[in-house]
Amino acid sequence: MKNKHTMTYRVPYADTDQMGVVYYANYLEYFERGRTEMLRSAGMPYSEMEKLGVFLPVREAQLTYFSSAHYDDLLTFVSWIEEMHGAKLKMACEVLNEEGTLLVRGSVTLVCVNERRRVMRLPQMIMEKCKLFLTEGENDNA
Amino acid sequence: MKNKHTMTYRVPYADTDQMGVVYYANYLEYFERGRTEMLRSAGMPYSEMEKLGVFLPVREAQLTYFSSAHYDDLLTFVSWIEEMHGAKLKMACEVLNEEGTLLVRGSVTLVCVNERRRVMRLPQMIMEKCKLFLTEGENDNA
Amino acid sequence: MKNKHTMTYRVPYADTDQMGVVYYANYLEYFERGRTEMLRSAGMPYSEMEKLGVFLPVREAQLTYFSSAHYDDLLTFVSWIEEMHGAKLKMACEVLNEEGTLLVRGSVTLVCVNERRRVMRLPQMIMEKCKLFLTEGENDNA
Amino acid sequence: MKNKHTMTYRVPYADTDQMGVVYYANYLEYFERGRTEMLRSAGMPYSEMEKLGVFLPVREAQLTYFSSAHYDDLLTFVSWIEEMHGAKLKMACEVLNEEGTLLVRGSVTLVCVNERRRVMRLPQMIMEKCKLFLTEGENDNA
Repeated sequence: MKNKHTMTYRVPYADTDQMGVVYYANYLEYFERGRTEMLRSAGMPYSEMEKLGVFLPVREAQLTYFSSAHYDDLLTFVSWIEEMHGAKLKMACEVLNEEGTLLVRGSVTLVCVNERRRVMRLPQMIMEKCKLFLTEGENDNA
Repeated sequence: MKNKHTMTYRVPYADTDQMGVVYYANYLEYFERGRTEMLRSAGMPYSEMEKLGVFLPVREAQLTYFSSAHYDDLLTFVSWIEEMHGAKLKMACEVLNEEGTLLVRGSVTLVCVNERRRVMRLPQMIMEKCKLFLTEGENDNA
Repeated sequence: MKNKHTMTYRVPYADTDQMGVVYYANYLEYFERGRTEMLRSAGMPYSEMEKLGVFLPVREAQLTYFSSAHYDDLLTFVSWIEEMHGAKLKMACEVLNEEGTLLVRGSVTLVCVNERRRVMRLPQMIMEKCKLFLTEGENDNA
Repeated sequence: MKNKHTMTYRVPYADTDQMGVVYYANYLEYFERGRTEMLRSAGMPYSEMEKLGVFLPVREAQLTYFSSAHYDDLLTFVSWIEEMHGAKLKMACEVLNEEGTLLVRGSVTLVCVNERRRVMRLPQMIMEKCKLFLTEGENDNA
């Protein structure tokens, strides 16, 4: 998967609900784990950004649930950047199980703000590093 | 607010993150609390549905974040039904703070399945009761 | 229940796990909700304390699980203060279901610190207000 | 560390609270991750146990908090078995940060039950495999 970051994650009991599957809100936490490791892998850990006074609160999130994850599944989080311009960073994520079945696909749109929560353009350095995972224009057939 | 269900919720420390605001995934849990109380108020508690062999797993979710909720805020969850036909139930939710500021708006699309996770039409009885909160055709200017 | 604070809480799907019961870590969140409302009821909201530069991080926690809580249960959280002297505040909590069955009993020991996280004595004003829920010396037969 | 299992875990934003540290309830989830991987490492994944009709609900938990974990910390969970006899399995866990500072130490007592939630002795096979991480009699100077 060119331009995409992957990591694995083991589902704990804590993430399941009484339907015997991963509770739907946890996928937003999974997306966070995926994009955090992607940014680290791009040489731009989010914890470093915050020290530079750059914050990325979420503006929008969208998820489609195709199939369920279960306790003890070893999931794969595939993350990439769908859009990046101005103050906007749109991250995409897919969650797959060990059989390679797509369980959930979604995206999270972040907006770059400074310490006073004022919207600002993404710093050039961050955009340069993030390019590695930018799939703009080719994400339709992802 | 005609056809809409409201409830309040106090933000615990547990829901905040180090940005000093409610972590973004928690809103999907808030939406669940909102629609659960709406269904109870319609005379159709979700726990009863499950006993009847009717389950409503989530198929899609969408959230737009306008402003942040903080620790100890007394939030209001406004819930209603945007669409209901066949096996599909699309719930909408808005989260407001005490000043009436809209913090988050979103929707969650549920699909009706039986105990074997086979898609089935929403039982007539459930549709009848849920009509109370159905705002179809008028939700655009909600 | 003299000197004790009670509140109710509805168990959401989010809190359950695949054993069909409330996941064990959630009770620490329940204890937080219980002691937060107790402090508010004593006229000393925790959010106010933080504004005064008084923080109460947790130093110890202990829980005994007697029986399980289930989805949609309307739980009661009973909270009181077992010990209060110097920098130490030991809160106790019991979680009961609608039948009055004791599900979980536990305690959380908080230590008073200032903004720089230095241990300090509990301010007199806080101790005065908290006395309302202090059951020291009588909590053995609670 | 003889007889002890270790694993690492990266702290996500989701686990932090507005004090800028990991929220105290999350450590019970960390303990779960620790003991789950320990059991897997002993050749006895908990998911397999459940398939054999053996469940291990929590009866007691105890935590002491020495210092705080922060966002993006790479934590180490050290897990071992303090006691194992009859139906009782007492697991211990320590959480350390990258500098090796002990942040939290605790224990969780599990009780072995069958599918009907009746207490039963730990099956011999499970006890045999778990011996690997049993430090009984030597845990005082752990």
